Amino acid sequence: MKIKVHVTLKPGVLDPQGSAIGHALASLGFAGVENVRQGKYIELDLAETDPAKARETARAMCDKLLANTVIENYAIDLA
Amino acid sequence: MKIKVHVTLKPGVLDPQGSAIGHALASLGFAGVENVRQGKYIELDLAETDPAKARETARAMCDKLLANTVIENYAIDLA
Repeated sequence: MKIKVHVTLKPGVLDPQGSAIGHALASLGFAGVENVRQGKYIELDLAETDPAKARETARAMCDKLLANTVIENYAIDLA
Repeated sequence: MKIKVHVTLKPGVLDPQGSAIGHALASLGFAGVENVRQGKYIELDLAETDPAKARETARAMCDKLLANTVIENYAIDLA
């Protein structure tokens, strides 16, 4: 079962990587870029076939390894 | 207008970061993790309100800065 995980910085947490992208876009001539945030996108293939169990496993993976829950949110999509 | 961009390595391109995550998950005791790929997730707020133009701008941003199109694919979602 394929799992897609988005890990994003919580609102209010400084995002220097996103700011750098915003400045780079501005210097390339792209106007009207108001806010840029960069996160991580992780695709996993799990042997688990039960959607509820797969989601539970993915949640445990996020809490233990994939996300720093102090400063990051995560979202799990099953596909 | 909010734009969401996913930048992922093309299939066949080695993904050491994804492999590292896979190994770390295995050593934490998560079994049945078959394939892990890590990509980037970028959220942009554009002043542009026309969806077609916003998508066109986002495509240009990806080609010029956000993605290395030799080894990476990108997907653009308007939200």
